[in-house]
Amino acid sequence: MNFYRAPLDDIRFLLEAFDYTGKVQSMPQFADFDIETSMGLLEAYAKFCIDELLPLNAAGDQQGVKYDPETHDVTVPDGFVKAYKDFCANGYASLPHSPEYGGLGAPFTLSVLGQEVIVASNKSFSMCPGLTSGLIEALEAHGSDELKATFLPKLVSGEWAGTMALTEPQCGTDLGLLTTKAEPFGDHFKLTGTKTWITFGEHGMTDNIIHFVLARLPDAPEGIKGISTFLVPKVLADGSRNPVYCGGTDHKVGIHASPTCVVNLEDAVGYLVGVPHKGMRSMFTMMNAARLQVGTEGVALGEAAYQNALAFAKDRRQSRSLDKAKQDLENSADCILVHPDVRRMLLNVKSTTEGLRGLVAWIAINYDVMHHAEDGEAKDKASDLVALLTPIIKSFGSERGFANISEAMQVMGGAGYTADWPVEQYMRDERIAMIYEGTNHIQALDLVGRKLMTGGGRLMRVFAGEVGALLKATLGDERLAPFANALKVESKRLNDTTMGMAGAAMQDNEVVGAVASNYLNQFALVTLGYIWLKIAQTVVELDADDKVRRNKMQTARFYFEMVLPEAAMYAAKVAAGKGSMMEIDVDLL
Amino acid sequence: MNFYRAPLDDIRFLLEAFDYTGKVQSMPQFADFDIETSMGLLEAYAKFCIDELLPLNAAGDQQGVKYDPETHDVTVPDGFVKAYKDFCANGYASLPHSPEYGGLGAPFTLSVLGQEVIVASNKSFSMCPGLTSGLIEALEAHGSDELKATFLPKLVSGEWAGTMALTEPQCGTDLGLLTTKAEPFGDHFKLTGTKTWITFGEHGMTDNIIHFVLARLPDAPEGIKGISTFLVPKVLADGSRNPVYCGGTDHKVGIHASPTCVVNLEDAVGYLVGVPHKGMRSMFTMMNAARLQVGTEGVALGEAAYQNALAFAKDRRQSRSLDKAKQDLENSADCILVHPDVRRMLLNVKSTTEGLRGLVAWIAINYDVMHHAEDGEAKDKASDLVALLTPIIKSFGSERGFANISEAMQVMGGAGYTADWPVEQYMRDERIAMIYEGTNHIQALDLVGRKLMTGGGRLMRVFAGEVGALLKATLGDERLAPFANALKVESKRLNDTTMGMAGAAMQDNEVVGAVASNYLNQFALVTLGYIWLKIAQTVVELDADDKVRRNKMQTARFYFEMVLPEAAMYAAKVAAGKGSMMEIDVDLL
Repeated sequence: MNFYRAPLDDIRFLLEAFDYTGKVQSMPQFADFDIETSMGLLEAYAKFCIDELLPLNAAGDQQGVKYDPETHDVTVPDGFVKAYKDFCANGYASLPHSPEYGGLGAPFTLSVLGQEVIVASNKSFSMCPGLTSGLIEALEAHGSDELKATFLPKLVSGEWAGTMALTEPQCGTDLGLLTTKAEPFGDHFKLTGTKTWITFGEHGMTDNIIHFVLARLPDAPEGIKGISTFLVPKVLADGSRNPVYCGGTDHKVGIHASPTCVVNLEDAVGYLVGVPHKGMRSMFTMMNAARLQVGTEGVALGEAAYQNALAFAKDRRQSRSLDKAKQDLENSADCILVHPDVRRMLLNVKSTTEGLRGLVAWIAINYDVMHHAEDGEAKDKASDLVALLTPIIKSFGSERGFANISEAMQVMGGAGYTADWPVEQYMRDERIAMIYEGTNHIQALDLVGRKLMTGGGRLMRVFAGEVGALLKATLGDERLAPFANALKVESKRLNDTTMGMAGAAMQDNEVVGAVASNYLNQFALVTLGYIWLKIAQTVVELDADDKVRRNKMQTARFYFEMVLPEAAMYAAKVAAGKGSMMEIDVDLL
Repeated sequence: MNFYRAPLDDIRFLLEAFDYTGKVQSMPQFADFDIETSMGLLEAYAKFCIDELLPLNAAGDQQGVKYDPETHDVTVPDGFVKAYKDFCANGYASLPHSPEYGGLGAPFTLSVLGQEVIVASNKSFSMCPGLTSGLIEALEAHGSDELKATFLPKLVSGEWAGTMALTEPQCGTDLGLLTTKAEPFGDHFKLTGTKTWITFGEHGMTDNIIHFVLARLPDAPEGIKGISTFLVPKVLADGSRNPVYCGGTDHKVGIHASPTCVVNLEDAVGYLVGVPHKGMRSMFTMMNAARLQVGTEGVALGEAAYQNALAFAKDRRQSRSLDKAKQDLENSADCILVHPDVRRMLLNVKSTTEGLRGLVAWIAINYDVMHHAEDGEAKDKASDLVALLTPIIKSFGSERGFANISEAMQVMGGAGYTADWPVEQYMRDERIAMIYEGTNHIQALDLVGRKLMTGGGRLMRVFAGEVGALLKATLGDERLAPFANALKVESKRLNDTTMGMAGAAMQDNEVVGAVASNYLNQFALVTLGYIWLKIAQTVVELDADDKVRRNKMQTARFYFEMVLPEAAMYAAKVAAGKGSMMEIDVDLL
């Protein structure tokens, strides 16, 4: 059984709440994408995902991918090749990409909101176009005109697929340790090395696969400052096979239909992208987008798990309401939705999932502004918000997404533990999001060690300004005051935590590592408080349909009363500092 | 790779800390089980588990069980049958059972501590003897002499296995809904109905399987007060096959090697156990023991995951220490154990796992006292502690166990997500512990709705007395004062929460359902604070080996500084009451 439907109503609501029209559609290149058109696009996209990709999800999980050591080929599950062709034929591969190379040029906002739907339908499948998009972004930003002309059209159409070949056995988090070599050879390079954890590193979905490879030139400085980036096609322009071979696939607990490959480069032809030794620039180009997308995976599977748990709960009768007046005596037991704890679990998932979706929408809109706005001030402000909140979306989105799926499973009891329902697969598929695209602690270090430091705390001031303005506008409204007051308290606490942490870190750099993960979670909870207050304000202002209004207001209330109190706990953990971790004898662990 | 070794040193330490010698071994029937003998037994048991059962764990997970719809047989994974014969041949099936029926008569304490080791080695396998033990307990307490004489010797030896056949498609939590019928037929009964989720409901490990079946007699009152219990053997005394057939096995996300069966009773011969309609008494006999054991599963797999993550961390080099003085410049990167966040994750797992193990040891010792002590006062006090803290061990042990395995996986990054390491299997295997043997919310309702109410709050007063006495003994000792002060604050807060909750619940019964789960977690964290303070006190008093002392003291510090602060968050959630869950329009979910 699977009860997933795309949350299009909520997406439309969020586009209005975060002023998609004023901020994105008002820009000349997005003039055609008004809300109606945009929602029409997303509706068609959702229909495709649910009709064609969702039915392949459980089967793909069970079948998995198959590696043939003789041919080095990887076979994806039944139906994936056809579904991918259909996906491209519908133009979905080219949705967000530049019209210059055949793309539709839709706002990034729509791309990310659509990402939720494709992941909820079939996370493994979504990774092939997802990785290709990352490659396209990097190439657009840093490739030569010649490389762009050669590769972009077929990547944008989806005829070719892309990979991100970063990690190696000895380096995941610490890319400075990578050893793959690139030797100059005429107008190109020859690359040798072993890449691991390469998503869709081999598959039969496209005629060609273009690897985006991190490697070292012979004269490269050590560490992170000596990394260059290369395009390494599986098939060369003359039709010959480039010696870049899959050496095996990993046996993972989830995303079984997404091949995770070892990729061996054996004097493979590669083309330099960008400036020698400055490859990390190309990497960071696609980082924000990719991390937003990973955070969105938690929204996607949290939402899908929620919908299934809710459908189960509506159908399940067990025990009696503790309130006699609510007992349904015509049946031998009450619907489990009468039980407060079942509601607690469902609202916990719903409030954090919808809050995160709002955060994703807000930051995605800012992402479009950052890239395309003409107004320098708006651009800078948007850029600061994107930089500050992207690690929060990635980390909190993946951590909470995983927890939410487990919570949804709890609503379903033993049924949720079986493959009769999709929730157990969601749990397995989602867990990797806390690890890949920079582990969650790397996000926390990015937030505390880099983003908070930028411009003497400028990013945090921009965010605090947004929160302050919203509080000012809402504290006086009695419909919003309970929420605004709760946010005010936690916003003040976050400020105190930040100051305390900054002071301690100035004395001792290790404090940053000790407190960053807890700090990120505190920050995330306050951020979602901002989002929920913004949503509540919108509801009040829009004079929205009564059903939408009540739904959002009751979910907001749950967030402020039952989720936001977690922020103070993280503050207490941050305040405890590094002693309990660092003043120990590590050999005794 | 799998780095598990049994935590025998910690177990020995806990036996001393919680006065196993004075409380258990001092009783006449346990005179032979001094600490040396007991540890010798556990050592041999651990060696067997690790040598014979651990190697079957990953293979059993991959192979799973196989159901044959023609014969209704279930085939367990390769090696399981032989391992089970060896298990019985070594006398391990009979360890805790009465010598009257051929058991070794060891204290329950040893049985539970041994349970950790067998679960860590092979959780699926452990469930067959586990369920059999439950059946034996119920039969010893409630069966007629004739039934005992017929069934117990072969169950105690392990020659026959047992099941617990409680749940049906329409009832899991709410057993009052069950419909399986038992009609009188001569000196026995004939049972008809369908049982679901029956662990080891069919398998080829023994010649006979004895089902402990809940059913209704023709004149039974409705609901929970009309349930009787029956023994239904697969093979009858005359060698004929009783019509109790497996109708299929569930496809679960974990415990693949443990068959979870549909069991169809088709006029099957059954023998009444105990008094008609009073079957729930027999159920509750084995509940405490079974729930303690389920909580122990979280300790077991949390510990095993921790050991693997630690082994991985010791071997893995990535990035540089934030403290320049700690950088190992002879290598291109530092061991990841230098990073505060890696230590934070490991200590989070270690402090909660060892704390829970201490709690299990304490309550297991009280379990033996409760059953066998001659001193009525000691017996009553032990009984109160067992009743109060068993739901906490089951719920917090399973919830934290699952979270701990996920945390250990995070230490390992992508490696932990693959089947190259056992942690992903632990995650899948452990998740069910939050659901079976009474969902975690049922534990919370048991705690708040039943245990707190008993004797006008007597159980809580006994617990508070223990905490108070320990605080009195430790607050003045400067080595213990920081821990004791933290516990004092949280113990006071728990008291306030309890009072506030009791007041609110008196007005409105639904409040109990709304707050119980969060209240249980607050209580659990305070309880583990008690355990850690007790451990620290023991370390100080014993003048223990310096390594043990430092290890325990640094882990205790982490618990008090970095884990116990979570208690205040749960208190805040309890204080928020039921409004956000109950004053909503549930149709809008």
